[in-house]
Amino acid sequence: MPATLPALDAPAAVTPTYIRPAASPFTPVLADIAESDRIFAETLAEYRSPIAPMIGHLRHYRGKRLRPALVFLSAKACGAVVPAHHILAAAVEMIHTATLVHDDVLDEADTRRHSGTFNAEWGNKVSILFGDMLFTHAFHLTSTVDGRACQLIGAATNRVCAGELLQTRERGNWHLTEAQYFAMIDGKTAALTEVATRLGALYSGAMPGVAEHLATFGRSLGIAFQIADDLLDLTGEESKAGKTLGTDLEQQKMTLPLIHALNTLPIAEADEFRKLLQRPGTNKRAEVADTLIRSGSLQYAKRTAEEHARVARTSLDCLPRSEFRSILEGLTEWSIRREK
Amino acid sequence: MPATLPALDAPAAVTPTYIRPAASPFTPVLADIAESDRIFAETLAEYRSPIAPMIGHLRHYRGKRLRPALVFLSAKACGAVVPAHHILAAAVEMIHTATLVHDDVLDEADTRRHSGTFNAEWGNKVSILFGDMLFTHAFHLTSTVDGRACQLIGAATNRVCAGELLQTRERGNWHLTEAQYFAMIDGKTAALTEVATRLGALYSGAMPGVAEHLATFGRSLGIAFQIADDLLDLTGEESKAGKTLGTDLEQQKMTLPLIHALNTLPIAEADEFRKLLQRPGTNKRAEVADTLIRSGSLQYAKRTAEEHARVARTSLDCLPRSEFRSILEGLTEWSIRREK
Repeated sequence: MPATLPALDAPAAVTPTYIRPAASPFTPVLADIAESDRIFAETLAEYRSPIAPMIGHLRHYRGKRLRPALVFLSAKACGAVVPAHHILAAAVEMIHTATLVHDDVLDEADTRRHSGTFNAEWGNKVSILFGDMLFTHAFHLTSTVDGRACQLIGAATNRVCAGELLQTRERGNWHLTEAQYFAMIDGKTAALTEVATRLGALYSGAMPGVAEHLATFGRSLGIAFQIADDLLDLTGEESKAGKTLGTDLEQQKMTLPLIHALNTLPIAEADEFRKLLQRPGTNKRAEVADTLIRSGSLQYAKRTAEEHARVARTSLDCLPRSEFRSILEGLTEWSIRREK
Repeated sequence: MPATLPALDAPAAVTPTYIRPAASPFTPVLADIAESDRIFAETLAEYRSPIAPMIGHLRHYRGKRLRPALVFLSAKACGAVVPAHHILAAAVEMIHTATLVHDDVLDEADTRRHSGTFNAEWGNKVSILFGDMLFTHAFHLTSTVDGRACQLIGAATNRVCAGELLQTRERGNWHLTEAQYFAMIDGKTAALTEVATRLGALYSGAMPGVAEHLATFGRSLGIAFQIADDLLDLTGEESKAGKTLGTDLEQQKMTLPLIHALNTLPIAEADEFRKLLQRPGTNKRAEVADTLIRSGSLQYAKRTAEEHARVARTSLDCLPRSEFRSILEGLTEWSIRREK
């Protein structure tokens, strides 16, 4: 299992030749990912004329296809992929993309995946409405499957929005607790990875108990992934990550290493550190990292991510051994070791 | 039928005492509206703690309850109200509210219904996420009814978002055609009134043909209503309307009277008028109105609204005569004569 996944940067294609198959754990589901990409594109195709450039620009928002891959890998680990999976994978990816488009407005970010953000290209107003459009098309797409899928995806998206809202409301709250932090990332990241694996299992005909285990896998993987993402924002390299880093600090977003440092440093040092965090401006990453290393907070966050990755891995014990179970197990390792 | 409807300004209550029942055509469905208000509030109740003030502020966004009333009046004109109607009415109103919250961000409006807008109170970022939350809760709520409702509400919301996006993209385009204008208002207003009347008919057990006529009623009523709303923005009184007027001009939004004037005035005068419209700043209403009266454009828009109201009225001919059919007929008159 390689430590990084090749990104799927190019627009949807039936045979994505830009991937080195041997290097990707998604290889066995690439054809399924391509099919969900096709459904994604087709859903928006009726608007080709007035807003074609915007739809084209979406390719910069479509990275690893982690969520569609989770749908298909879970389906194959539990049974088989059926046509509903392709539709549901497209819908989940569309909701994820909608949140990214709105996130970039909220974060005033101007770069994503080496390219201009949606808001940088078309402004905030068009970005808000285009995000809305992606949300509603995702729901309409889901409704072509059945009512159960609408309920599951609706409930997951409720959690996503609540998590995002909580995060925005608590921006600049340097007294955020670890419990509040976990409530946030449960919504903003884990809800969608959880519904992806749950849908994968359910629509492959898995028993409810197995689907529940797969849902736990998805949720724990999402939490591990998000903590690793927060660490990346603090300590990663922009050239490798392909996006602006340090934005959490700039946007005054509290993350796990910061919470740990503020809770464990001697009071005077914690106060000093809080002042540094409150100071507006960029380029605080090096200074912040120094403190986080000294307080053991980067290590603490890393260990916490590893613990969630372990929970994810053991949730798979209910499944028979297979290539697909192994790939899902490998993803738990990847989720905490990635550089992008 | 009075020319104006009393507004339901106060928060949801089982017996809305602030209404003068005799004055409202919604009287026979007030208990149903109260029940859909209750479902609306209950859906968001789990978030009472962190975002209670925002949920409370929503009462300023809940005006006439036109869309829920259309669900119930259509249901009663075709058959009977069933519990699904209350859920669907709440979902449609929630989507309408979500678009209002996002609209106020787009329009940078600071007053709605004599009160501060959501964005004026909590800023754009929280407003974007709160709007998203309303969208997704509306879809989840709909999924508790059935898959058909999800498809209908999903498709209607797709149209709403496309209409809004088109409007924003075409802001400041003083060469907009009447066809483009109608494509816009079909989405931003008529799609939701259409789905409200269609759902009312369908879930009361109406035959498909009847439901189609009721859908035509809702769509035509919505178009008449929107043209009247555009006229109100140009010529209404802020004190009566309870909202900032002239925002269409300020936001460089093209409306039917302006399109007509630019198409009918002599070229030199049209160019002069276009320059006036392009000039930034507020307080152009009086000057613009002078031209629109001279070119007969206010009259033209009024006649067009009346024509759509007439189509709405005749769509009801398929129904047996009843109190509810009469109220729906009366609404077509009200839609073009209101002052708020």
